[in-house]
Amino acid sequence: MPHKIDSKMRECIDNCTQCHNVCVETANHCLGLGGEHSSQHHQHVLLDCAQICAASADFMLRGSELHPRVCGVCAEACERCAQDCERLAGGDELMTRCAEMCRRCAESCRQMAACRFIAPTIR
Amino acid sequence: MPHKIDSKMRECIDNCTQCHNVCVETANHCLGLGGEHSSQHHQHVLLDCAQICAASADFMLRGSELHPRVCGVCAEACERCAQDCERLAGGDELMTRCAEMCRRCAESCRQMAACRFIAPTIR
Amino acid sequence: MPHKIDSKMRECIDNCTQCHNVCVETANHCLGLGGEHSSQHHQHVLLDCAQICAASADFMLRGSELHPRVCGVCAEACERCAQDCERLAGGDELMTRCAEMCRRCAESCRQMAACRFIAPTIR
Amino acid sequence: MPHKIDSKMRECIDNCTQCHNVCVETANHCLGLGGEHSSQHHQHVLLDCAQICAASADFMLRGSELHPRVCGVCAEACERCAQDCERLAGGDELMTRCAEMCRRCAESCRQMAACRFIAPTIR
Repeated sequence: MPHKIDSKMRECIDNCTQCHNVCVETANHCLGLGGEHSSQHHQHVLLDCAQICAASADFMLRGSELHPRVCGVCAEACERCAQDCERLAGGDELMTRCAEMCRRCAESCRQMAACRFIAPTIR
Repeated sequence: MPHKIDSKMRECIDNCTQCHNVCVETANHCLGLGGEHSSQHHQHVLLDCAQICAASADFMLRGSELHPRVCGVCAEACERCAQDCERLAGGDELMTRCAEMCRRCAESCRQMAACRFIAPTIR
Repeated sequence: MPHKIDSKMRECIDNCTQCHNVCVETANHCLGLGGEHSSQHHQHVLLDCAQICAASADFMLRGSELHPRVCGVCAEACERCAQDCERLAGGDELMTRCAEMCRRCAESCRQMAACRFIAPTIR
Repeated sequence: MPHKIDSKMRECIDNCTQCHNVCVETANHCLGLGGEHSSQHHQHVLLDCAQICAASADFMLRGSELHPRVCGVCAEACERCAQDCERLAGGDELMTRCAEMCRRCAESCRQMAACRFIAPTIR
């Protein structure tokens, strides 16, 4: 049975991909801003989000049965990142864009996490 | 408050790192064996395990608050990989070693997933 | 001096990102096709391209001084992948699309590799 | 022709793996130290080294023909990281250990980059 990526999943892959990219760019941008923007907590939140978004996209692109689990964690990481970027943005354009992308990605990952059946491991 | 990696977490990082490596090596080895070893399912199981192990190790090395979630998914991916490698190993030395490493990694990831408190996102 | 991503680099980041995604999807698709498509060589070529494209994009998004070096290797990996996909495509739609994306990515990575000055390490 | 990982390559894989881990840990540690340790430059140097080390290890574990190229860039990234960690270490234990690991990894990557023949792309 071939792996079919439907439009819903395709959209989620796209969101994860874009979210990864804006998080990596924002992490660097925030190091430049300094202060709380370059704190361990804020940098973790951005790097965590970037890394799990990349994994999430790859699991869906491979058609892996476990993708709903990874999407579940990804939704959580995106939500945290959105909140922390909003908290610190203060009108910064890139951080605002990052927060919005994280929200959108969290929403589509939550849908992927919820609606999929995960086959038992033993075959 | 600095991030302290205790011996339990250090061991889990080590397991994830080694598990990643043996899965990448085994995936290639299985492509060479062909047949069901190079099926989408078996390759997914190996590549999924490799990728989430790497993420899991990085989350712990960074001291990210979300590491128990990633470890939880990692434990599941390792368990699946162990089972599928055992199913197909038939005396193959590398596949047997891969299955054992996955079991060990699953066990330590389950412990990390269970015993950690995840702070609420809002600070 | 803040990191500025100009339109040329932005385009290259985009190509690397899309190239990564289509290579991961094609690798899985080729496992389903079997035969030479699931050979070690063809799978390596696709996975190598996917991994170095992701690294290349991240180096540019971070504004890392070493990005021209990574782009140089990336161009080579993309070129190999394009050639191998064309060799095996035989009218397959996804493989043809993968080959085209790899060509486009190789071209923009070559430009990034060529036109950048790498500062000496000692500061 | 099966892929054989000889002891030289096995050692290089090991160095890349350990170097990746110590760089991720040190990057976080340096964010905690603040000042120049959390500058964009120092963080890039650490994250670049971590990411290309991981890619380098995977290329060797897969037995990819292009691994000498990735090892070449990896040697350069390790060298830069070693120098920058030494420059800023000032007796810090983790940074000193990171610098040493980077030196060792650079040395073995240079050997892998030099001694391998890369087959032409066309087959």
